[in-house]
Amino acid sequence: MDNIDNQAAASWLQSVRWNSAENQLDLLDQRLLPESIVYLPLTTSEQVWDAIKQLAVRGAPAIGITAAFGVYLGVRDVTGSREKLLDAVAKQCEYLATSRPTAVNLFWALDRMKQRAVVLAAEGGEPEAMKQALLDEARLIQSEDEQTCRLIGEHALALFEDGMGVLTHCNAGGLATARYGTATAPMYLAQERGIQLKVYADETRPVLQGARLTAFELQQAGVDVTLICDNMSGAVMSKGWVQAAIVGTDRVAANGDVANKIGTYSVAVLAKAHGIPFYVACPMSSIDLSTPTGADIPIEERHEDEITQGFGKRTAPQGVKVFNPAFDITPNEYVTAIITEKGVIRAPYQDNLKKLFTEE
Amino acid sequence: MDNIDNQAAASWLQSVRWNSAENQLDLLDQRLLPESIVYLPLTTSEQVWDAIKQLAVRGAPAIGITAAFGVYLGVRDVTGSREKLLDAVAKQCEYLATSRPTAVNLFWALDRMKQRAVVLAAEGGEPEAMKQALLDEARLIQSEDEQTCRLIGEHALALFEDGMGVLTHCNAGGLATARYGTATAPMYLAQERGIQLKVYADETRPVLQGARLTAFELQQAGVDVTLICDNMSGAVMSKGWVQAAIVGTDRVAANGDVANKIGTYSVAVLAKAHGIPFYVACPMSSIDLSTPTGADIPIEERHEDEITQGFGKRTAPQGVKVFNPAFDITPNEYVTAIITEKGVIRAPYQDNLKKLFTEE
Repeated sequence: MDNIDNQAAASWLQSVRWNSAENQLDLLDQRLLPESIVYLPLTTSEQVWDAIKQLAVRGAPAIGITAAFGVYLGVRDVTGSREKLLDAVAKQCEYLATSRPTAVNLFWALDRMKQRAVVLAAEGGEPEAMKQALLDEARLIQSEDEQTCRLIGEHALALFEDGMGVLTHCNAGGLATARYGTATAPMYLAQERGIQLKVYADETRPVLQGARLTAFELQQAGVDVTLICDNMSGAVMSKGWVQAAIVGTDRVAANGDVANKIGTYSVAVLAKAHGIPFYVACPMSSIDLSTPTGADIPIEERHEDEITQGFGKRTAPQGVKVFNPAFDITPNEYVTAIITEKGVIRAPYQDNLKKLFTEE
Repeated sequence: MDNIDNQAAASWLQSVRWNSAENQLDLLDQRLLPESIVYLPLTTSEQVWDAIKQLAVRGAPAIGITAAFGVYLGVRDVTGSREKLLDAVAKQCEYLATSRPTAVNLFWALDRMKQRAVVLAAEGGEPEAMKQALLDEARLIQSEDEQTCRLIGEHALALFEDGMGVLTHCNAGGLATARYGTATAPMYLAQERGIQLKVYADETRPVLQGARLTAFELQQAGVDVTLICDNMSGAVMSKGWVQAAIVGTDRVAANGDVANKIGTYSVAVLAKAHGIPFYVACPMSSIDLSTPTGADIPIEERHEDEITQGFGKRTAPQGVKVFNPAFDITPNEYVTAIITEKGVIRAPYQDNLKKLFTEE
């Protein structure tokens, strides 16, 4: 492990960095946050596989980007014919796909790398040039993700005003993406432009992504962020300190119902009770028209230990019953707008989400 | 310290127990919950002072009861005249009052012990008989508190039905009182009578009183309790699993506004949004007609470490801003009823609370 001290010089914390000088992938070890900023120097696809498997990287886009670079690392030393290289790419993609079998972005990125290799080969590319083009493709996946997040941020920021209080839940942040994140994108853009936002970050029990990640990455970027416990969001709203709530999402159904980290629903209900707009920020790829409503989204229940001894210390009695859903569903009537890279969508979601894809 | 193994035989966990056989006070060390059930055998007022000071006992009524027994322990070995005993009682009361200088119940209980001694002396009581009468007075304070809690429980249980789901926040439980607690009183009475309630206990960040105490004491008593994180209460309500929410309170203002543990307000708003009644259970002594509204109740802000490293391990970045109010105010419009030992009070609270005291 390589503790990059000069990271402090950067104004933002990049989770996945291609290091041209060393010809290696520097991957922020998110398991060590917020206590240590350590980049893992990855030079082989096996190291990439391990890093994904061991959760050093998290966040669907960041995982996909990491895997794409992993393909390049896995084939860069292959010598011989174009066909041999093509075969190696396919094998690497198959291998890397096993690192996190439920990650849709992972498969998407690997498939894109494989297709790129097929096209390059079909075009008669030379092996060395093909390798370089694969590295470029991984970089393109990363820069496209950054561009998507930036566009989400632009559309979201247009809804915000200087001096506003903004509450967020969980981490739909830059660490999970190439840069900017989704819910955090307007916060970073505001920071770049000298627009003052006062961010309240729910700590997000049980796994504390808000405390460990959101508060951390915003603090690193110099954004004005205040950490609160989840049960304080209502009190903070009642004081008039919050003018907007914004969260990410794991999946938006065709009717605009939103699946996101447990506690999102409570934030949405509290926002509505206080007349505060509740925004959902996500890439188009998170909108799933084949899922009719939120009721069709399965909710994972996780191990009780996350609640009873999530921090190494037991904080609840042995054998107590626990309910620990990872996500909840926020019905569309609580969603003021869904903000994507293509713009801001409002109710009626059934029609307007469909339209968005038809126009594409 | 004396680990009482036969505690398991009892159907409920008593925080303060007078042990007649040993002529000592057995005090449950609440600091060790939920991992260990240990009773401290207290034989001197100095030990009682230490136990209160070191937070082995918590909960206003439980502290008052403990101190009352402390007065007896402090004077039982005094020999000589009635006047000498009276003087010793006054000194013990003064001494024990310094153990927890902000605890109103502590002063109330000590004052009552002192007044009792004055009356006994005025009646020409013999020193040995007076000592016995002081022990009886401490027991009476305890049994009156139990009776108050039981009456609160009776009135609350009349609002509940067999099979109902009941959500509670923080610990307004038996451990804080002689027995039954306030918000938990209907749960214990239901249990005694074979009425099934399904209790959901919010863990109550940052100090986790719900996880460490409420879930624990209800589990010990065999009540069907499920522990959830605070941010899950909305999701649990939306599933239709909760038919009532009930909490304790630190103070009720004259207009029915309720100060209670941070997060109570969010529970109340969520309950209203789901059409679920929100009840506040408390003794008459918690209603303060001299406080006009909730806005007149000062809210203590506590140290950020409770949030950033409350589990022994740092879970938030160094130097991050934190907002950590200990309480919040639930406006009266969210309160379906206030349940006291004298009955159930409903809106308009301004009139009905006043009436309650006038009738007295």
